[in-house]
Amino acid sequence: MKFSLRQAQSVVKKLSFRDGLVTAVARDFRSKDVLMVAHMNEEAVIRTLTTGLMHYWSRSRGRLWLKGEVSRHYQHVRDVWVDCNGDALVFDVEQVGAACHKGYYSCFYRKVERGELVQVLKRKFKPEEVY
Amino acid sequence: MKFSLRQAQSVVKKLSFRDGLVTAVARDFRSKDVLMVAHMNEEAVIRTLTTGLMHYWSRSRGRLWLKGEVSRHYQHVRDVWVDCNGDALVFDVEQVGAACHKGYYSCFYRKVERGELVQVLKRKFKPEEVY
Repeated sequence: MKFSLRQAQSVVKKLSFRDGLVTAVARDFRSKDVLMVAHMNEEAVIRTLTTGLMHYWSRSRGRLWLKGEVSRHYQHVRDVWVDCNGDALVFDVEQVGAACHKGYYSCFYRKVERGELVQVLKRKFKPEEVY
Repeated sequence: MKFSLRQAQSVVKKLSFRDGLVTAVARDFRSKDVLMVAHMNEEAVIRTLTTGLMHYWSRSRGRLWLKGEVSRHYQHVRDVWVDCNGDALVFDVEQVGAACHKGYYSCFYRKVERGELVQVLKRKFKPEEVY
């Protein structure tokens, strides 16, 4: 799913950026599993909507990144949802490869059980072979 | 699902708070629909895990809040997932009433279509009758 630049700019105008950012949830479009939670600045939203590929703003690295730019594990946008406050978006995506840089399909591969974080997903790839 | 204080504190130690906060995604435990995205400080995580009811940190009001404290639309915790960086959590919850203060079951009641935000969910309650 791609939008024109004018359409993307029109969406951005309806969002409420806080410290320049909105929260982005990427979800598998089939299973609805949450793949990752990250942030987007205006440019990341525009690039995501106009290219159909998820782009994020990395707070730790202080730069825009195309998800998959190194791993080629791109996220193709299928649908975009906006919350009541306009400061969070849910993206239904088609995930190539796996979302997590640690090799799991989803970054949420651990569940809380009796106060411990228990790994419930198996690795899909070895990070050292991809990055 | 409830945890002991010691278990909750053990989970908190494994999280990475940024400016004192982690991102919390609340999801319907049956449909997996995302209901809302908000934030939690350490105390909100502890209270959520020990009471089994979702608590958030309101950045705009600068205070802890129990979801449902006014509306009685509580969110009962069923499962808790933690991401690779420890700065985002997904909660599978049983939603009483509706999650959105505007009267919708989910805060994500709008979808992006041709650059417009199109409402796709119907209201479940009138906000003026609840708040």
